[in-house]
Amino acid sequence: MHSVYDVVIVGCGPAGLTAAIYCARANKKVLILEKETIGGQMSSAPLIENYPGFNSISGSELANYMYEQVVSLGVNIELEEVKEIKVADKKTVVTEDNEYETNAVIIATGSKYRLLGLENEEQLIGNGIHFCVSCDGAFYKNKTVAVIGGGNSAVINALALSELCQKVYLVQNLSKLTAEQILIDKLNSKSNIEIYASTTVKRIVGDAELEKIILDKNSVLEELIIDGMFVSIGLIPQTDSVKNILDINDYGYITAENCISKIPGIFVAGDCRDKKVKQVTVAVSDGTIAAINAIEYLNN
Amino acid sequence: MHSVYDVVIVGCGPAGLTAAIYCARANKKVLILEKETIGGQMSSAPLIENYPGFNSISGSELANYMYEQVVSLGVNIELEEVKEIKVADKKTVVTEDNEYETNAVIIATGSKYRLLGLENEEQLIGNGIHFCVSCDGAFYKNKTVAVIGGGNSAVINALALSELCQKVYLVQNLSKLTAEQILIDKLNSKSNIEIYASTTVKRIVGDAELEKIILDKNSVLEELIIDGMFVSIGLIPQTDSVKNILDINDYGYITAENCISKIPGIFVAGDCRDKKVKQVTVAVSDGTIAAINAIEYLNN
Repeated sequence: MHSVYDVVIVGCGPAGLTAAIYCARANKKVLILEKETIGGQMSSAPLIENYPGFNSISGSELANYMYEQVVSLGVNIELEEVKEIKVADKKTVVTEDNEYETNAVIIATGSKYRLLGLENEEQLIGNGIHFCVSCDGAFYKNKTVAVIGGGNSAVINALALSELCQKVYLVQNLSKLTAEQILIDKLNSKSNIEIYASTTVKRIVGDAELEKIILDKNSVLEELIIDGMFVSIGLIPQTDSVKNILDINDYGYITAENCISKIPGIFVAGDCRDKKVKQVTVAVSDGTIAAINAIEYLNN
Repeated sequence: MHSVYDVVIVGCGPAGLTAAIYCARANKKVLILEKETIGGQMSSAPLIENYPGFNSISGSELANYMYEQVVSLGVNIELEEVKEIKVADKKTVVTEDNEYETNAVIIATGSKYRLLGLENEEQLIGNGIHFCVSCDGAFYKNKTVAVIGGGNSAVINALALSELCQKVYLVQNLSKLTAEQILIDKLNSKSNIEIYASTTVKRIVGDAELEKIILDKNSVLEELIIDGMFVSIGLIPQTDSVKNILDINDYGYITAENCISKIPGIFVAGDCRDKKVKQVTVAVSDGTIAAINAIEYLNN
């Protein structure tokens, strides 16, 4: 099977959906390919309260609004996993069953939060288990939370939560925190943060909601009753399909300043791109910028 | 009068409103100062169809949703024009009547499209007169439009519209276009673009909607019947209140990579910041990034 598009967008999260809105409104023929979920990682958020325009909305509902908007503009969406992108004058986007010929490609494959790999973990995401403090920290005002991790983002998360929460535990598997010293100094100055070093989370307890976690410190078990847990052990960018053709940094992200990759006609948007802040607002901006660059590339 | 805030945000467009959402949800005491209109330039758009989540919404309605969201988070908003920002360990934001003491400032003062300065022009904005092709071009599919201007953005706008519209006129007051040659070459290859050089718009005709424009070419008048007109003669960044303290580029924009200014504790977001793409999506991203940086600055 063989189809020709102006733009193929790989990934149907907020970045890919926004790119599709801009490309379709510029009269381009657009296909989105998504391997798993319309809305991407956003869809798993039970409540989003920091996307301007919606006081409080579930991630799946917001994804659905964006999806309807894109479909109403005549964009094709197929649930197929992209295996490879062949680069010539035109590009060929290869999935298990199809090859799509296109003049431009926008990579918007996102990234996934790294999990601890424990039982109950996945099903409690959004119900006590979280990753993003800017997104979900406010739900734990005056409550007790644990942050799991010891790098910069874990410590930044713990500091931010200490401004909101009554009590913050920071649980790190190594004997020391690996964050920058200035952050550690700040951490130590906070009276409501308690650090567990050389400690792992052994078990997560809770059915509908997180109730407590069982910690293991040198084989001594301790029960920690908490309202929420923020897992801050990193992200896994979903960049396998392009790692042979684009520049990938040490953490697996695609480096693409202004959403422009090193290959003419290939653009990059959203959480798979190397940048500091990963939020829905930033993803829709990336989608916009990648699309505007792609449209210029196609028109000029 | 003297109040102390964690963050004072100057400007209440999408960038400032988003920054307020993030700062308030991080438990910061926030004040927004706005000199004119809640929603900023966005409020004057009759229809926005490229902000993800809303198929089609008026700019003032979208501004109102964002405003309600911000107010529900306890953010103060005052209609006061900022005259000056005094920088010491804390910052003092000075308006006509008040001085607000604060630990951090986010500048989100936006920019305004430059007008031709003709009668009827302001009242027809949104009803035939537009500035942004990515925003409003799609409303003129298969119709006849004029682009006013001869620089890069005018030519890029004309090229983009030529993919959508039946006929595009490009009206430039100078004898030559000032855009890059590669863009001009591309322009010349388009059969549906007609260039008027050494030509000014003398009069805009239309009451409720734009009907036609009267052109003046070396004192010879010509009537051009068009459905829409895109004025592409530049933007005026609203940066007077900070031009003595921050780095301003040749076009009047504040240079602030990653929304961080050269002064610790002052951050910059939205259309007043030097960057290529100016859209609501990019403004909300800037607001997010400036806020997250400000929160880190305050916490650490």
